[in-house]
Amino acid sequence: MSQRARVAIVGYGNIGRAAVDAVQEAPDMELAGIVRRNPADRSGIDAAIPVAGDVSELGPVDVALLCVPTRQVPDTAVQYLSKGIHTVDSYDIHGELVEVRRRLDDVGRAHGTVAILSAGWDPGTNSMVRAILKLMAPRGITYPYCGPGMSMGHTVAVKVIPGVKDALSLTVPLGQGLHRRMVYVELETGADFETVKRRILEDPYFRNDDTRVIQVPAVRDLLDVGHGVHIERRGVSGRTHNQRFMYDIRINNPALTSQVMVAAARAALRQKPGAYTLLEVPIIDCLPGDRDELLRRLV
Amino acid sequence: MSQRARVAIVGYGNIGRAAVDAVQEAPDMELAGIVRRNPADRSGIDAAIPVAGDVSELGPVDVALLCVPTRQVPDTAVQYLSKGIHTVDSYDIHGELVEVRRRLDDVGRAHGTVAILSAGWDPGTNSMVRAILKLMAPRGITYPYCGPGMSMGHTVAVKVIPGVKDALSLTVPLGQGLHRRMVYVELETGADFETVKRRILEDPYFRNDDTRVIQVPAVRDLLDVGHGVHIERRGVSGRTHNQRFMYDIRINNPALTSQVMVAAARAALRQKPGAYTLLEVPIIDCLPGDRDELLRRLV
Amino acid sequence: MSQRARVAIVGYGNIGRAAVDAVQEAPDMELAGIVRRNPADRSGIDAAIPVAGDVSELGPVDVALLCVPTRQVPDTAVQYLSKGIHTVDSYDIHGELVEVRRRLDDVGRAHGTVAILSAGWDPGTNSMVRAILKLMAPRGITYPYCGPGMSMGHTVAVKVIPGVKDALSLTVPLGQGLHRRMVYVELETGADFETVKRRILEDPYFRNDDTRVIQVPAVRDLLDVGHGVHIERRGVSGRTHNQRFMYDIRINNPALTSQVMVAAARAALRQKPGAYTLLEVPIIDCLPGDRDELLRRLV
Repeated sequence: MSQRARVAIVGYGNIGRAAVDAVQEAPDMELAGIVRRNPADRSGIDAAIPVAGDVSELGPVDVALLCVPTRQVPDTAVQYLSKGIHTVDSYDIHGELVEVRRRLDDVGRAHGTVAILSAGWDPGTNSMVRAILKLMAPRGITYPYCGPGMSMGHTVAVKVIPGVKDALSLTVPLGQGLHRRMVYVELETGADFETVKRRILEDPYFRNDDTRVIQVPAVRDLLDVGHGVHIERRGVSGRTHNQRFMYDIRINNPALTSQVMVAAARAALRQKPGAYTLLEVPIIDCLPGDRDELLRRLV
Repeated sequence: MSQRARVAIVGYGNIGRAAVDAVQEAPDMELAGIVRRNPADRSGIDAAIPVAGDVSELGPVDVALLCVPTRQVPDTAVQYLSKGIHTVDSYDIHGELVEVRRRLDDVGRAHGTVAILSAGWDPGTNSMVRAILKLMAPRGITYPYCGPGMSMGHTVAVKVIPGVKDALSLTVPLGQGLHRRMVYVELETGADFETVKRRILEDPYFRNDDTRVIQVPAVRDLLDVGHGVHIERRGVSGRTHNQRFMYDIRINNPALTSQVMVAAARAALRQKPGAYTLLEVPIIDCLPGDRDELLRRLV
Repeated sequence: MSQRARVAIVGYGNIGRAAVDAVQEAPDMELAGIVRRNPADRSGIDAAIPVAGDVSELGPVDVALLCVPTRQVPDTAVQYLSKGIHTVDSYDIHGELVEVRRRLDDVGRAHGTVAILSAGWDPGTNSMVRAILKLMAPRGITYPYCGPGMSMGHTVAVKVIPGVKDALSLTVPLGQGLHRRMVYVELETGADFETVKRRILEDPYFRNDDTRVIQVPAVRDLLDVGHGVHIERRGVSGRTHNQRFMYDIRINNPALTSQVMVAAARAALRQKPGAYTLLEVPIIDCLPGDRDELLRRLV
């Protein structure tokens, strides 16, 4: 890879914005441009960065970082893979992952392209850590503690409730994989808080958790994209019990998601056609630079 | 791999002993037997386990776990790879790793066999974690804190000093990657403590660290194979600073080393001929069981 | 005690197995053998260790470590004490302890033998720590945090529920002496999870705690005998407030229980006939070696 890989960012929300930084900071990549529905909207975008409604307008593109809403990821990936462009996404619907992987694998193989799926921090690097903990102590219990941090999915579920002007659903860990949802709502004029609250508490997204709903004058004043995860495992290596492992991160959510996507883009350029999760590619393929030098420094 | 892989354990010290447990607990492996210099010595070995002076006496063997002293690893690996047996080791001389990898890579390719090198916990799973931290925050500083725990290499360096009957070198973290060496020595009758102490403090293994030498009546009373590592990284994802990561393990050293070797043995069966570190194989290849099921549970 | 004390292990479950190691490692003891219901079952037992159905077959025995289920402890102790053999147990029903102690005290005095009761880590060494904290700060609050770790009593209570094939009840500290019960159940074919779950939640063992019931395919994959306790006391020494004390252990449960029993066996040989808890024997009686030397090193 003496030449820099040309990378396009597809979608320009929280993740897309952070991806601009991550691609520009990568020593082996070049930002081909941004693809978004309304390319005329250039607010907040550096004048030097091309913005297009279609990827074909950006010149040759090696990899596309799909920063669109998770539900749109599979179809968007199929579209790009069919055009001969590798894709990376942070698809996060665990239950459908294996099915999506199979579909993209077929498309990738047919068109000589590579898709790296679910390449964020969870799923993504956390999945890698879970797998390493599992290989070190095959028997035992792993407890994940998510947050405190904003849950995108839960926030969106609240925002669509009539009378809600803005919302924030914060995930707070209670231990043993149990979580509390702190839901902050800003209401439209005339909306009834008790009605909104009941709707939230009955929602399948919330009804099994310890959910607290709080009315606030301005959700924007509470927003912070910091997040965190704490993973603990205690288990058995061979026949030796009480092996203890702990992993803890406190991070900016979109910055980490897009950074992992950039690492996955690098790996995409090094795999055979098909679809992969981060568990299926060698870790070293995600890093820039000379391989022997990486082994010397990291092993 | 519907059939169980047949695994031989080469060498029967601390790691070899723990490896018996790890292989016997693996659902996809079968213990072919133990290879040791003196096969007549069966003390502490279950009567059902074959012990041989040469691997050829153990019937078909797919993978050999090399549990010999680290200096003997390269030559032993070459010998087994040439016989058509995959190898796994926990070679831990960081500075020579790339050279050894190249040598085993040539031998493996020539004989259609796979070597997985440095597959313990450090180097090994810690290397994987360091690489993941690096891909999540390419810029920043990683601080490793080793121990408290027994350092095998440093202990051996003390044991060979004349007048030393038994020794224990404990590594203790001082923070920011700095370490103190606590050296406990049991002397032979008539040996002079000050002479021994001076020899230790002048040794290249010790002279750059904060080393304390303590005379004790019986080193055995202090021995414990527990160990630990604490890795912290703070760095930059994209252009976002203050991303914080932490990994902490408190473990039985030989139990974890041998468990990681068993996971690497599984990966050896799934790679093309050549030599690899754990950074160069997909993580999923280290785990037993159905791949889709693993993706469902771990991603 | 120039001669080694001969110790029998009664019962061969988790604790009995660990007790073999603890007795064999004690410099002042000799393992007379194991007493179990079915002496023909020698699986996993070193060929050199005698196994008998009755203690009389093991030759002279000074102390018996009672590693039987807690409910059987009082009657078993009476039986051994009457035969002229000292006993040690880890009886853990706090509410009945005083009554059992009185009964064994009478039997011991009548037969010239000593019983040490509740000599595990809780009750046992934790009781000693609680007493020491209390003497250092007579007024104040002590908070115990147990776990995370497997609770034997709670696990057995779940295992007897119809439809339960295997179970694991984990105790997790929530702070301030409050605990959560994580109950993992493996069901028999055809058993209804909701019915089993309701039975557990209504059980007096569980109904006062925050109990979560989780169905798993194989309980064995989760088992780990690691455990821990964290004891905090803040209190008043004299009239000075804010004296703070903390004691924290992370341990292998049967290994620690049996090690404490071995120490108590040593103390049993040094008391006058009767029954004692660890609070009632001088601590120094639990340690091997020359008393003056112990005073020199430990005081």
